Amino acid sequence: MSENSYTEVGNYARDSMRDEKRLAEPYSRIDKDLDRHVDRIRRLLKQPSSSQQDIGIDKCADLVGKLYKEVGAEKVEVVETKGNPVVCGECRGESDRTLLVYFMYDTMPFNEPGWKYPAMGAKMVDMMLSGGKVKAIVNRGSDNTKGPLAAFLNSVDSCNKSVGRPPVNLILVAEGEEELGSPSLPGYIKKDKKRLSKADACYFPFFGQDCDGASNLYLGVKGVVYFEMESSGKRWGRGPEEFAIHSSHKAWVDSPVWRLIDALKTMTDDNGNKILIDGFYDAVAPPTPEDDMLIKALAKRFDSKAFRETMKVSRFSIPESDKEALIRRFVFGTTLNIDGIWGGYTEKGSKTVLPHMATCKVDIRLVPNQEKDRMIPLVRKHLDAHGYADIKLTEIDTGYDCCRASVKEPVVQSIISSFRAFGLDPAIWPTSGGAVPFYAFNKILSIPFTMSGIGHSDLAHSPNEYMVVHGNRKIVGLADIEKFFVHFMDGFGRA
Amino acid sequence: MSENSYTEVGNYARDSMRDEKRLAEPYSRIDKDLDRHVDRIRRLLKQPSSSQQDIGIDKCADLVGKLYKEVGAEKVEVVETKGNPVVCGECRGESDRTLLVYFMYDTMPFNEPGWKYPAMGAKMVDMMLSGGKVKAIVNRGSDNTKGPLAAFLNSVDSCNKSVGRPPVNLILVAEGEEELGSPSLPGYIKKDKKRLSKADACYFPFFGQDCDGASNLYLGVKGVVYFEMESSGKRWGRGPEEFAIHSSHKAWVDSPVWRLIDALKTMTDDNGNKILIDGFYDAVAPPTPEDDMLIKALAKRFDSKAFRETMKVSRFSIPESDKEALIRRFVFGTTLNIDGIWGGYTEKGSKTVLPHMATCKVDIRLVPNQEKDRMIPLVRKHLDAHGYADIKLTEIDTGYDCCRASVKEPVVQSIISSFRAFGLDPAIWPTSGGAVPFYAFNKILSIPFTMSGIGHSDLAHSPNEYMVVHGNRKIVGLADIEKFFVHFMDGFGRA
Repeated sequence: MSENSYTEVGNYARDSMRDEKRLAEPYSRIDKDLDRHVDRIRRLLKQPSSSQQDIGIDKCADLVGKLYKEVGAEKVEVVETKGNPVVCGECRGESDRTLLVYFMYDTMPFNEPGWKYPAMGAKMVDMMLSGGKVKAIVNRGSDNTKGPLAAFLNSVDSCNKSVGRPPVNLILVAEGEEELGSPSLPGYIKKDKKRLSKADACYFPFFGQDCDGASNLYLGVKGVVYFEMESSGKRWGRGPEEFAIHSSHKAWVDSPVWRLIDALKTMTDDNGNKILIDGFYDAVAPPTPEDDMLIKALAKRFDSKAFRETMKVSRFSIPESDKEALIRRFVFGTTLNIDGIWGGYTEKGSKTVLPHMATCKVDIRLVPNQEKDRMIPLVRKHLDAHGYADIKLTEIDTGYDCCRASVKEPVVQSIISSFRAFGLDPAIWPTSGGAVPFYAFNKILSIPFTMSGIGHSDLAHSPNEYMVVHGNRKIVGLADIEKFFVHFMDGFGRA
Repeated sequence: MSENSYTEVGNYARDSMRDEKRLAEPYSRIDKDLDRHVDRIRRLLKQPSSSQQDIGIDKCADLVGKLYKEVGAEKVEVVETKGNPVVCGECRGESDRTLLVYFMYDTMPFNEPGWKYPAMGAKMVDMMLSGGKVKAIVNRGSDNTKGPLAAFLNSVDSCNKSVGRPPVNLILVAEGEEELGSPSLPGYIKKDKKRLSKADACYFPFFGQDCDGASNLYLGVKGVVYFEMESSGKRWGRGPEEFAIHSSHKAWVDSPVWRLIDALKTMTDDNGNKILIDGFYDAVAPPTPEDDMLIKALAKRFDSKAFRETMKVSRFSIPESDKEALIRRFVFGTTLNIDGIWGGYTEKGSKTVLPHMATCKVDIRLVPNQEKDRMIPLVRKHLDAHGYADIKLTEIDTGYDCCRASVKEPVVQSIISSFRAFGLDPAIWPTSGGAVPFYAFNKILSIPFTMSGIGHSDLAHSPNEYMVVHGNRKIVGLADIEKFFVHFMDGFGRA
C-alpha cells in the first residue's frame, strides 16, 4: 500500500502545517513508517486479551510494555494489582504540560457466532461505506480499544524518531480490566498517585468518526452497574430445588422461571423502557445550561439515520423526528437492560422439564448524579418490597460512576482545535453511552479529561468489529489518525 | 449376584402360584436367567438413542429387532417411516386374546450436567432408599423406558423358554420418536392397521412403584403441545435486527428481550400458575363420577411427601393438607410451562449487549377435552390481541391429545389383579402427568389401554436416571418385575 493511500481528508491540514517543523517532521515520519505502524497494530490485535474469560491477559500486558519501550517510553513497568496488571510508562516531552493517556488492553470475549473472519486474525479486508471503499482490519479490540492504543503509540514513536520527543510529557497507563469494570484501577491510581499527580489532564484515544465521516466528541461517559438476578427453587423454597424435573409436575409444583419473569415484569413496563423501581430516577440531575446548549446545537446536525444504520436498527424507541428529544433520551437516559437470560433446556428439540433455576444479566447505565453504589440496593429493596426476597442479586465486576468535563476545559478545547485542523467539526455530546473509568482519575487526581480522535471503527461488543486503516473521501486513514494525535499533544502542550 | 437377591417382596405371590404350572415354569425360568436378563437390559441401555439429537436411533432400532428375535418373536420388522423406524414383531400365545405392547426405544438427551456416573455406562450402583439399600442401574432410558422394554422382553423370553409361548398373543410395537411427539406413529398405525386390529387392548409396561414401594396405576395420560416463542428485533421492526449491539443504546433502542418478558407476562399470573390466555380453560371437561370416586379414594392414601422428596421439592404450589384438591390439581391441571429460555450473553462475566433476540420453549399439558390442535392457535390469538403479532410461535415436535381408559376395562382389571397378586394395592390415578401416544391407538384402533407394572425407577428427563434391579423390603427387584408381566399376560388372556 502506498504512503498516500492512508491520507485522504487531512491533506490540507498537513499542508498548512508544513512550515511548522515540530509537526511536519513527525508527520513525515508517520507517512514513512505507515506499513510498520499497521504491523504494530496487527501485532497487538492478534494477541487475545479477553478479561471476561481470562484469556491472554498476561501475555498482552507484556506485549504492551514491549510496545511502550519500542516507541521510546521510559520507566516502563508492568504493575501487579489485585487483578490484571496495569502497564505504565513515561515520555519526557517538549512542554511542561503532562498528559495522562489512559488505555485499556483488555477486550470483550470474541467467541460469539457471526464472525465472517477470524476474530483474532487481524485480517485486512475491503469494506464498502457510504463514502466509498475502505480497507479495514477486522479483529476483536480493533475499535474497543486496542486499535487506538497502538495507533497512539505509533504517533509517539514518530515524534521520538523525528524531533526526538513528543510535544508534551506523557504518562501512559494501560489497564487490563476495563471490561470487568476496572476493579483494580482506583487502587492503582491511589498507589501510584505521586507519579500520576504530575498530570494536568487525562486523555483516552479512540476513533471518533462515524461511517459517514461525521465526527463526535463526547464530553463525558455514563456510569454502569452490572449484576445477575437468579431465581432458584432452593432459595425460594418452592419449585424444584436440586435439578430440573419432568414438566408434568408444573401442575402442582411452582416454576422458578415464571418467577423470574414475574419479578422482572415488576421492574419495568413498556418493553423495558419505563423503569418502575422506586427511586430509580430520583437522583437524576436536570440538564445544565451547557448541556442544553450542546443538545440544541447537536440536534441541528445529528444524523440519526447513520447511527441507526450502523446498528442495523429500523427505528428508535421514540420518534426520530424530534432530534432534540432523541438526543436527550440518549444523554440523560438511565437504563435497565437485560444483557442475557437463560434457564432450563436451551438446545434443539423439546425436552420437557420444569427447571430449578433461571438467571439473567442486567446492566444499569448511570447519568449525573446517580451513584453506582446505590443502584443494586435500590433493586434489592424493590424486589423485597414486591415479595421477591429470594431472588439473588450478584454484582458482576465493579461499576463506574459517570463523569463529565466542561467544554471549556483547555484539554477539551485542544481536542476541538485538532478536529478543526483536520477539517472536521465534531458534534459535541455531553456524554457518550459507554462507560470508561474516568471517574477514578477525576475523583482521585482531580484532573479533567477528554477522549476521541479521528478515523472510523465500529462494532464494539459485536462480531466483525473493525477499524478503518485506508479511508475514503469521508473517513481519514491511519496516517491522519496518528497525525491528529501529534497535533493534539502539540496543542495541549501549548494551551 | 445370587438368584434370590432380586426377589424380596413378591415371594409369597410366587409361592401361592407354585402349583399353577403355566406361571410356575416361566417364574422359575426368570429366576434361573436373571443375570442374563440384567445383561440384556444393560445392552439395550448402553446403546444411545436420543431422538432429540438424532444420536444412535438406527442402531438402537436394529438392536430392538435383534432382541425381539432373541426372545422368540416372529415376523420381526424394522419398519421405515417418515421419521425414525418402528420395530414390530409378533408372538403366538396360549389365549385367543391379543395384547398390543407399546414400547419406545428413544430417550431424552443425556448431555446435561449433574451425572454422577456416565449416562450411557449402565453402571450398577448401590443406592439408599427408605426401605433400605437397593442395587440400581444408572443410565438414560433406564426409567423412561428402555428398562421396562427390555424387562418385558425378558418375561416373554422366559415364557417361550419354559412353557413354549406367552399366555396371550402379542404384537410388539416399539417406536423411536416418543420424545419428539410420535409424529410417525399415527401413520404407522394406519398403514399396519390390518395386523394391529387383531389387538384387544394396548399395554405400555413401566415400573410403577415409587421409592417407598407404593404403587401407582394411571388410567390415562395427559396430552402435550410444545412450541418455541421467539422475539426478534427483525420481525418486530424495533430493537437490534441483525446482531446484539452495545448496551448503551438501550437508552434509545428497544429490547427484544424485555419484549419477550412483557409478552410472557400477559400469558400468566401468579408465577405461571394462572393462565390468562382467553379460552385456555374453556374446553376442560368436568370430572366424571368415576374421576371423583377415584380422587376421593386416592386422597385417603396419597403419600404426597414421598412424591415431593423424590423430586426434591419442599412444597407444592397449593397447600398439601387438602389432598383431594392437590390430586385434582395434578389430574385436571392444564399447564403452561417454560421448559427453557435464552437470549443474549449467557456466559461468564459482564458482556454489555442489547440482544437482538430472545427465545423460550413452552409446553402445554392437556386434559379432557382440550385438543392439541387448538392450543397453539389460542396462544397465537392471545399474542396478536395483545399486540405481539411479531412474536413467532414454532411448534416443536407433534403434540398428543390426552387419553383415558375406564377402570372397568378388562385390561385395567387384569393389571389391578396382578398388582394384588404381588401384594401391592396400587393407587389408581385417573391420569399420569406424562404423555404417551395412546390416543393414536385409541382413536385409530378403538382399543382400550393400560400401563404400569411393579418395580421402581425414577429421574426421567433428569441426570442420574435409574431403575432398581435388586430391591429392598419395599421395592421388588427385577425377577418380580418380570413375573408380574407374565402374570398380567396370563390374567388378560383369561379375562
